[in-house]
Amino acid sequence: MADTAVERRPGRPRTQTLDERVLEGVSALLESGETLSVRRVVEASGVSKAAIYRRWPGITELIAAALDRGRTPYGISLSGDLLENLLEAFSSDGAEVGYSEERLRTRLRLSLADRDLQQTYWNSHITRRRAGLLELLQLGVARGELRADLDFDACCDLITGVFYYQVVVRGDSLSDPATRDRCRAALRVAWRGMLNPG
Amino acid sequence: MADTAVERRPGRPRTQTLDERVLEGVSALLESGETLSVRRVVEASGVSKAAIYRRWPGITELIAAALDRGRTPYGISLSGDLLENLLEAFSSDGAEVGYSEERLRTRLRLSLADRDLQQTYWNSHITRRRAGLLELLQLGVARGELRADLDFDACCDLITGVFYYQVVVRGDSLSDPATRDRCRAALRVAWRGMLNPG
Repeated sequence: MADTAVERRPGRPRTQTLDERVLEGVSALLESGETLSVRRVVEASGVSKAAIYRRWPGITELIAAALDRGRTPYGISLSGDLLENLLEAFSSDGAEVGYSEERLRTRLRLSLADRDLQQTYWNSHITRRRAGLLELLQLGVARGELRADLDFDACCDLITGVFYYQVVVRGDSLSDPATRDRCRAALRVAWRGMLNPG
Repeated sequence: MADTAVERRPGRPRTQTLDERVLEGVSALLESGETLSVRRVVEASGVSKAAIYRRWPGITELIAAALDRGRTPYGISLSGDLLENLLEAFSSDGAEVGYSEERLRTRLRLSLADRDLQQTYWNSHITRRRAGLLELLQLGVARGELRADLDFDACCDLITGVFYYQVVVRGDSLSDPATRDRCRAALRVAWRGMLNPG
């Protein structure tokens, strides 16, 4: 298994390969519905306990990292029409989702069952991913397009909340055209609400 | 147990008491983490299978009804200042939550694990509860305060999405003053975005 991982990513350093092996092991265990422990991860990945603890402080951080696998930052362009960039970034493959919807649902389900995991995931992954959106809003204010008195946190919650709502409450798919249209309409409302009237 | 239920609600008809007994039984089973079946509900509630099936078509509808226990409609006033009414309705006890946050988390967790349950809950409970919010927006348009071209579904998702985001993504409590302030700020942004510019 180590060899396979090495062959698949020949240019990557040894430590990344180990990381990847561990996270793949954790993901597989999560998908199987097993209760996780570092001992089970050692068995599933073949990576030693010591090596795991050198990389992650504990099982919660390890699960959070595995749940984040495959997700990419929003990737919002900061030149030209900011609203168009926002719509584009959030409709490329549904919301802030750079991975399958089933994995998103699993991540949310586990987070709702475990507040520690939820807070860890929020602090270590989501806040980092929100940085691109925050930057876009700050640029809008700097340009004078958006109001100077914006509550950035509230605006980020408003913008991303509508996408989570589709998955968590409606049970709709973000790749469904009707869902995307609804989200785009909602983003336009939010954007108008942030515009500088002056 | 039947007697207790009857004593607690002396003025209510017999059928409502049976409903309540069944839903209490289902809730207790859900809280214990048990896998549910109609047979287990019969054992837990003492109500016959035939009586249960007369009221609910199946286990999914029964779970949806139990998850909705204790929730009340938004209760949005439709006179006076509509934005103030909206802020008031959504800050009375956090979002659209007329029951404990743990039950909300349980409901969302079960929905994420079971798409049938999620769709049933959406169709039979949430769409009904959204009616008050929808009415408020429609009144705003009729008054000329809100834009005539609003996508009502998108706006309802935007407004309620920000509250779910607090619980599902941030892991924050809706009774926390900082969370409430953030949600209120977001609602004001959404409202400005819906205003009729004419």
